[in-house]
Amino acid sequence: MNDSGREDSGQYLLGIDLGGTYIKGALFNLTGTLLRQVELATEADCGPQHVVNRIALAAETLLTGESPVLKHQDLLGVGIGVPGNHDFANGIVIYSPNLPEWRRIPVRDWLAKRLACDIYLDNDANAAILGELWQGAGRGYRHIAMITVGTGIGGGLILNGRLYRGAAGSAGEIGHTVVADGGPVCNCGIRGHLEALTAAPWLTRRAKEALAAGRVSTLAARGALLEAKHIFQAGAEGDSLALELIAEAAHYLGIGLANLVNLLSPELIIVGGGVAKAGENLLQPIRSAIKEYALEVPAAVVKVVSAELGNSAGCYGGAALVLQEKNKLEII
Amino acid sequence: MNDSGREDSGQYLLGIDLGGTYIKGALFNLTGTLLRQVELATEADCGPQHVVNRIALAAETLLTGESPVLKHQDLLGVGIGVPGNHDFANGIVIYSPNLPEWRRIPVRDWLAKRLACDIYLDNDANAAILGELWQGAGRGYRHIAMITVGTGIGGGLILNGRLYRGAAGSAGEIGHTVVADGGPVCNCGIRGHLEALTAAPWLTRRAKEALAAGRVSTLAARGALLEAKHIFQAGAEGDSLALELIAEAAHYLGIGLANLVNLLSPELIIVGGGVAKAGENLLQPIRSAIKEYALEVPAAVVKVVSAELGNSAGCYGGAALVLQEKNKLEII
Repeated sequence: MNDSGREDSGQYLLGIDLGGTYIKGALFNLTGTLLRQVELATEADCGPQHVVNRIALAAETLLTGESPVLKHQDLLGVGIGVPGNHDFANGIVIYSPNLPEWRRIPVRDWLAKRLACDIYLDNDANAAILGELWQGAGRGYRHIAMITVGTGIGGGLILNGRLYRGAAGSAGEIGHTVVADGGPVCNCGIRGHLEALTAAPWLTRRAKEALAAGRVSTLAARGALLEAKHIFQAGAEGDSLALELIAEAAHYLGIGLANLVNLLSPELIIVGGGVAKAGENLLQPIRSAIKEYALEVPAAVVKVVSAELGNSAGCYGGAALVLQEKNKLEII
Repeated sequence: MNDSGREDSGQYLLGIDLGGTYIKGALFNLTGTLLRQVELATEADCGPQHVVNRIALAAETLLTGESPVLKHQDLLGVGIGVPGNHDFANGIVIYSPNLPEWRRIPVRDWLAKRLACDIYLDNDANAAILGELWQGAGRGYRHIAMITVGTGIGGGLILNGRLYRGAAGSAGEIGHTVVADGGPVCNCGIRGHLEALTAAPWLTRRAKEALAAGRVSTLAARGALLEAKHIFQAGAEGDSLALELIAEAAHYLGIGLANLVNLLSPELIIVGGGVAKAGENLLQPIRSAIKEYALEVPAAVVKVVSAELGNSAGCYGGAALVLQEKNKLEII
């Protein structure tokens, strides 16, 4: 039995990745096989109640759209990952950057009227690390930090085999740690945060500044359409400006991660997100920077690897959230 | 029963604080009343075996020196706090800055030949936070960070009500997090660490530099004998140089602690150590700096307070270590 009085007999998991544009959903069995997937437009313009109905529609589609047809009681639960701040205990979205009109939306309670199973909701970074722990790069590890570097920086922590949320439910915000006192202003308004020095918008701005100053680079051909991914492509092709920018980002990522290594001594750091698609061109200088700035004892045990789950990462994460909250996410 | 095959029936705890100059020991009952204390010279010059015999002597003195006379089986266990790196699982001191000749000394096994009870050993910072959790400023909290600012900086973490050691057993080293990229070189050899910018030697060096440059201050009267405590005294009396130095230290402590707040979202930060004797003159600017550099959500829940246990802190910590390892350190 569980809190809601239901038997925990379900043999399937639903993972939902709620984004501003798409709702992605997937059905898994308890051993982590992805059985079916669905993707719907979020239609956020139609308001929160409509979006929650869309989540229910995604769930129903996954349960009944293919054979065998499943019932709500076949589910151990539904887990939803969504960017932003949430009241985890009550399944409320307090604020989401991708759903700008949403303020304190009780997603769990609204969805419970449509789905007769346990429902959990957490931020996308926490879902991502749980997914990697369950079926990705984190399998078998007990102490993990994950950093997701894209347009912003997300972070999550697995400590002693469990997601660590801290007192305010906000733990893991490595993007908002100071790595350069007096540095550029972050989206959060504070100077010198890691996010302000390494996320994709910073990389493209730095590249454009260098080009405007007359720096020769293959990046010049991109003009105003220059994106972070072009910098990684150019880096892989040996462009010296691109390599400098990647090295600079890796320097700050290395400081932020070395601070985390000294504070928490994880076994594993998983690097995900768009910027992480630079692969070893980014990971190798990050590893060097960690060696440079971290203490010998914790630096000797930590590995730095890429995330393994791709576009379905958020769905794996939602499903893994259900397992963790039911104490069924076992570390092998 | 426990790992060693003994019944966990003991009603008393021994806490030992092993320093380079003194061995302090105290006997406690399970509810945290300090019943007896003893202090012996460490006599580190006579070698590790001699020092371990001195620890046994301290324990015997505490058991039999007063009425009622206790037996080894009256003890739930002995906990020892000692600065440095340790193999916690095996009770081995790998390295201790206060006992410079010691390399991989199996304190637990040596002591077990003299004391028929369970023996635990951890670093002084971990012992300190466990002591504060048990009988000090940390009572009733589940998510705590402690920073000890003295000649160096120590740190410990209580996460979900338990001491967090991380993968390498070294977690909590907030003194060795970078707060000023390119800053002064730390004792560990790395630039810009918090310890290099806020510990007592840095404060006195900065004061002497300012005085040598002609700065007017009451500190000038101390000459070569100037110590950090004089700077705090002068600050309390309104000396402007002293207040500037305290503010500068608080700025960096605030950055380091704000990073920790964003990463871990603790409920409580406990500040201890010699430098912390500056009290509110230091705590108030630290609180301001945390507000300035931390995110609103975790900053809203965290309190910053002084450590409560004084000279016997290490003994309380040793005793609390026994309780935690036996899962008897309950959070109220």
